[in-house]
Amino acid sequence: MENIVSFSFTILGSSSGVPTSERFPAAHVVNVHERYFLVDCGEGAQIQLRKNNIGFGKINHILISHVHGDHTFGLFGLISSFSLLGRKSDLHIYAHPLLESILNDHRKHYYENLLSFKIIFHPLGSKKKNLIFEDEKVEIHTIPLKHRIPACGFLFREKPPLLNIRKEMAEFYRIPVKEMMNIKMGKDFINEKGEIIPNKTLTLPPVKPRSLAYCTDTKYTESILPQISNVDILYHEATYLHNMLEQAVETGHSTARQAGRLAAKAGAGKLIIGHFSARYKTTDRLIEEARAEFPGTYAAREGDCHIIEQVRMTM
Amino acid sequence: MENIVSFSFTILGSSSGVPTSERFPAAHVVNVHERYFLVDCGEGAQIQLRKNNIGFGKINHILISHVHGDHTFGLFGLISSFSLLGRKSDLHIYAHPLLESILNDHRKHYYENLLSFKIIFHPLGSKKKNLIFEDEKVEIHTIPLKHRIPACGFLFREKPPLLNIRKEMAEFYRIPVKEMMNIKMGKDFINEKGEIIPNKTLTLPPVKPRSLAYCTDTKYTESILPQISNVDILYHEATYLHNMLEQAVETGHSTARQAGRLAAKAGAGKLIIGHFSARYKTTDRLIEEARAEFPGTYAAREGDCHIIEQVRMTM
Repeated sequence: MENIVSFSFTILGSSSGVPTSERFPAAHVVNVHERYFLVDCGEGAQIQLRKNNIGFGKINHILISHVHGDHTFGLFGLISSFSLLGRKSDLHIYAHPLLESILNDHRKHYYENLLSFKIIFHPLGSKKKNLIFEDEKVEIHTIPLKHRIPACGFLFREKPPLLNIRKEMAEFYRIPVKEMMNIKMGKDFINEKGEIIPNKTLTLPPVKPRSLAYCTDTKYTESILPQISNVDILYHEATYLHNMLEQAVETGHSTARQAGRLAAKAGAGKLIIGHFSARYKTTDRLIEEARAEFPGTYAAREGDCHIIEQVRMTM
Repeated sequence: MENIVSFSFTILGSSSGVPTSERFPAAHVVNVHERYFLVDCGEGAQIQLRKNNIGFGKINHILISHVHGDHTFGLFGLISSFSLLGRKSDLHIYAHPLLESILNDHRKHYYENLLSFKIIFHPLGSKKKNLIFEDEKVEIHTIPLKHRIPACGFLFREKPPLLNIRKEMAEFYRIPVKEMMNIKMGKDFINEKGEIIPNKTLTLPPVKPRSLAYCTDTKYTESILPQISNVDILYHEATYLHNMLEQAVETGHSTARQAGRLAAKAGAGKLIIGHFSARYKTTDRLIEEARAEFPGTYAAREGDCHIIEQVRMTM
């Protein structure tokens, strides 16, 4: 009866503004129940998708945190390749409205407005949290961030899945098929004699809905804590070490120590730091600094895939 | 007295429209006497420059064959990185005028027109060959090509270097210092008695000026033969195998066999084929086909650097 379903976060790019020979600009893939979301699309994202064997056909939704080049310059090539390969399905892009004019200019210049598929643009505000995507498995909310230009993060929340019915109990209480869905949704069962059989008796403990918060680019801000509280994975930018705090504040970025502190306050399951300045040849010191605040810290690295396992709640 | 100076061609990207996990879109570096020319600038060019240890500061001239995405999408990130790193020196971009409006749109959207350096745009025509760059060491001419949109190749010609004077002859004929430059430029020497000492007696055989022709994207066309005759390196696109000739003609591209044939007719020293369709996982068959026409064929491969050696003419 156990249904193992995916919830993962793959890193395609871990650099900030200037890429290095090792690090590509920001791009990530969140996979929730085989729905793939490309989160930011820095230069080379299409090459990184290829390298990581993530088929272009899987990408139907692209979420852009803010309209800086290192988060968007990969869109042009990706859209071009989609069209050259004859894509037919709609592509949904969620971003600040400025990006729509940029993409329209590109279509005019490069494709004479001809693409093999439709782009459906979803303008994002960055002042308030908003539900921007929802289906039966997942919902995505924006997280208002504090950067030099309008920016928002994204909170991915798995919908509470249906309960699994204990087969032996279903037989024992002779539950009719028509009642099954109600029980899966959490209702108690009332039998022919009018006896109430509590739902808890009939079902396995529920699976904990998983969540991931993606927060870049941003200054340190505790205003996002209510939203990111207890997420399984917090991805948070750590452009600088804390000895560059002044520069971080000035440019609207965070330090590794700040990212660690935020993860601790949020009670996150795991912290992934990324968006590293090109000045850091290795991530050793960034990791060390964040771990002093929050031991469960990992450095974003191209090609790494972090999986959030499904766990049953203990009642 | 021998002065070994560089003339090389480095490949940063060998793919056509759609990159693969191995192949980046078109980008190349021509180095003539330590003048670096970035030739086409597909997505990821800046990352490839980093990987190949070609310092950003060396790139002052960017030549764009035509305004398709796979030859230009790397410009946005490269310009952005130049500016983030505080570049001060002018950047010269040679391309079809359409690219200027595209870059202007980008500046407006992404940088509010603020860059740390100046872009000097040189509009290129594609109907006639034109001298577009010249200094004391090298000249660059456009090569009119035949593609779906205006496109031109580039011919790099080393200027004939000054002659080297044989030291022993200079002493024997007691050549005064003021005459040296004339002799280096090829003049005979007339001594005090009015005797003519032929230049050939006084100097080493001249060094053969080197040349490289870069031809992509284009259909097969013999109209370029007069320009590319006897070049040391011919880089020519070979998007398809010859069994896809129809597709090649339709899309304004060449086949490997055609590239080989052209190199043979031009009497090129070496042929490098590139701009490979993503359908070819390896270049084996492309190379085989071109070599049947022209044995000195090599496949473009990311990171390869082809050096043209300096040779003295035999008199």
